[in-house]
Amino acid sequence: MTAPHERLRARLGDPALYLDDPADTARYARDWIGKYVGTAPLVVRPRTTEEVAAVLAACTELDVPVVPQAGNTGMVGGGVPRAGEVVLSVERLNAIQAFDEASAAVTVQSGVVLETLQGYLAGRGYDMPVDLGGRGSCQIGGMIATNAGGVKVLRYGHMREQVRGLEVVLADGTVVSGLNILKKNNTGLDLKQVFIGSEGTLGVITRAVLQVQPAPEAFQTALAGLSSRDLLPALLQAARARFPRLSSLEFVDGKTVAYVRAADPDLRIPLDGDHASLVVIEEESASGEAAGEAFATGLESLLEDGLIADAVVAGSEAQARAIWRVREAPTEAVSRRGLTHKFDVTVPPGVIPAFLGEMEALAEGFAGVRVVLFGHLGDGNVHVNMAQEPGLADDDFLAMESALADAIYGAVHGRAGSISAEHGIGVMKRAYLSLARTPAEIALMRTLKRTLDPKGILNPGVILE
Amino acid sequence: MTAPHERLRARLGDPALYLDDPADTARYARDWIGKYVGTAPLVVRPRTTEEVAAVLAACTELDVPVVPQAGNTGMVGGGVPRAGEVVLSVERLNAIQAFDEASAAVTVQSGVVLETLQGYLAGRGYDMPVDLGGRGSCQIGGMIATNAGGVKVLRYGHMREQVRGLEVVLADGTVVSGLNILKKNNTGLDLKQVFIGSEGTLGVITRAVLQVQPAPEAFQTALAGLSSRDLLPALLQAARARFPRLSSLEFVDGKTVAYVRAADPDLRIPLDGDHASLVVIEEESASGEAAGEAFATGLESLLEDGLIADAVVAGSEAQARAIWRVREAPTEAVSRRGLTHKFDVTVPPGVIPAFLGEMEALAEGFAGVRVVLFGHLGDGNVHVNMAQEPGLADDDFLAMESALADAIYGAVHGRAGSISAEHGIGVMKRAYLSLARTPAEIALMRTLKRTLDPKGILNPGVILE
Repeated sequence: MTAPHERLRARLGDPALYLDDPADTARYARDWIGKYVGTAPLVVRPRTTEEVAAVLAACTELDVPVVPQAGNTGMVGGGVPRAGEVVLSVERLNAIQAFDEASAAVTVQSGVVLETLQGYLAGRGYDMPVDLGGRGSCQIGGMIATNAGGVKVLRYGHMREQVRGLEVVLADGTVVSGLNILKKNNTGLDLKQVFIGSEGTLGVITRAVLQVQPAPEAFQTALAGLSSRDLLPALLQAARARFPRLSSLEFVDGKTVAYVRAADPDLRIPLDGDHASLVVIEEESASGEAAGEAFATGLESLLEDGLIADAVVAGSEAQARAIWRVREAPTEAVSRRGLTHKFDVTVPPGVIPAFLGEMEALAEGFAGVRVVLFGHLGDGNVHVNMAQEPGLADDDFLAMESALADAIYGAVHGRAGSISAEHGIGVMKRAYLSLARTPAEIALMRTLKRTLDPKGILNPGVILE
Repeated sequence: MTAPHERLRARLGDPALYLDDPADTARYARDWIGKYVGTAPLVVRPRTTEEVAAVLAACTELDVPVVPQAGNTGMVGGGVPRAGEVVLSVERLNAIQAFDEASAAVTVQSGVVLETLQGYLAGRGYDMPVDLGGRGSCQIGGMIATNAGGVKVLRYGHMREQVRGLEVVLADGTVVSGLNILKKNNTGLDLKQVFIGSEGTLGVITRAVLQVQPAPEAFQTALAGLSSRDLLPALLQAARARFPRLSSLEFVDGKTVAYVRAADPDLRIPLDGDHASLVVIEEESASGEAAGEAFATGLESLLEDGLIADAVVAGSEAQARAIWRVREAPTEAVSRRGLTHKFDVTVPPGVIPAFLGEMEALAEGFAGVRVVLFGHLGDGNVHVNMAQEPGLADDDFLAMESALADAIYGAVHGRAGSISAEHGIGVMKRAYLSLARTPAEIALMRTLKRTLDPKGILNPGVILE
């Protein structure tokens, strides 16, 4: 019996449709951090929705497992061929097809790179409401398939909230085209919702209609210091009420600030003194003095209420960048010092202070590991970084991953949190799915998977074993 | 063979669980406008999720068709027993169960009345982001099942965007509980999305976690006049960019204003002169003078750009109410003058001017019918009212409904619009579903229906024949 990828290659015929030289396919077989590495004997790169449909129909007929792949910037192994599956890359579906300004909507193919779309929209005075660090390589189809969030979730929500219409190809090659451009449309089941966040397990996204926003005229940015991290939940509530266009509310724990300072003596913190927490507050605004005054008034009221101990407002673009450096420095510091196990979780904002304390206590049980804590206060998303300290061997550190995951995800579960704020389940968090979802929910997921992909050819092993 | 409702009644036992006296059940058998009237031999009123589960398990086992019902304020016949089905009312599931301020989320049972929840939240400084005219009787479960929109869609979106967690009972009695309170949670398929907007055909909603917003401190309200309705799309684009907290942008066509004036000589229009269109512009704002000045500056720029010919700003709550009266008057005027066929549709905002002209031309083909046009400019939602003129007999007017529907929905389809902006498909628009969705989409809806409700006991005939 021939291997699955050979059956498919024979069926495809046209060599312009695929890559099969290991020198070409290697980059599709590993994720960008090198954690998940497989083999990709065949990478199919369709140029049209019809070609995607033909490929999937053949895969179902010939029992060929397929891993859909967009920008391949995920963190949980959901886009990597783990057992020699065929990779279906959408990278050549890369056209921005239409922009309707009155509808504030853009129609794109799923292989469009986020930064390309951002540039296209900026030239028209508009902005994509979802932005994230991987903007230079992540592609729209992958962002939809994982319901990406990023740095503006607080104000605009996730990808799900931006998708007005979707074209998806099912496992059997059926094209389900629902390229709705309307904001209001209630005509039967909203099928696109089934595919958003499904991590390529139910269909392959080929096109989307996305809602866009007028680009903000200006930003107001401040760095604030707190006397106690117990104030974080009250600060969130007050900031939500006082800054109606609040777009970011990011925190770095005080001990993490001290650690980063030690690791990088050149880092300039624009706020004097030691604080239990530093918080970046950013609001979108109109241009002009009035917006700045309103922002300053809001900060003063936070000071008067004792929610923050001190604050500095950026007076220039350069100062705003210096403030954001404080939030980005921990990520760089841990990667410079050694290896890190990263856990991206959410807890209800009200329990963040207790959760941070719990993470510190938990880390003490792992000798040679330092806990580094920061994240998005606005939506309770905590980045728990467990960093290797000098003296601990790489192998010993790497061997700690599952014990750390068990302990951290268990704590998250105990506080009604989520084991995956972003990126999804993939293969990395599959074993912990029962901490996140009830047995009835998991059973219903299996039912939907069986219904839409009865042979299980689409991204096998992702989300569900 | 006993009737289905008798089989269920015998199984239920406890008479406290149901109503079966026609004097009690009559009000569950008709919609509030009296357009859809059926019979309800048995109305089951569970008090807990477990009771809902037991009822549905029995219905599936005994082949008893069920119509789920919440506030029964729909317009498309989706909550009315049309063939003597059992009604499952959620009205006794009416507890507000929890409020988490740091998470900005409230947990409610599905029978809670919107106005009750609004009052509860107002006392805590918060607001439900979805508000609509039926607030005094509509219930949360029905609002979720129909993905209700209302008057703040422009700023906050529909019910879908407010639902963080959902508890649903499937046709076979399985309780799928996903009462997530987190804003960020990507752990497998987002199952709640399948049920939102499914009009009671896939499951019965018993509880929900809803996102809430800090109540705005103040509102800025203006009435503007346009020299041509061709300016409406450009006005929308400019308003979106210049009023960042824009919450309403409502239009009334100039000819409709003239008609309403004639029908109600007491109506005071706060803006002098004749205009091709009147537009209500409302923005949420901080309290204080600066907010008023920013709003006035925005209006001036619209005047300078020639997008509006004149405008008046409300200087008091009473003046704001007078402005809103202009938008509400057409609805009252048509109901005072006779019968009306109402069509609630959406078109891409860019084609609104052409679509309004098309509706006028179309009405000329129906003698004795006057077209009355107004709606939500912000999302392209046009309320096409076809009103009976004096001299046309009721029966003749009523007989025109399907010819009008054919013509109007055909025009909407031709402009890539939606035949149902709100309220859904129900039974009223079922025959037109193929104008709204592709064959592949309709086939996938049928597949999901068959998978989740194999015996077809839930709301039979709604959405799909």
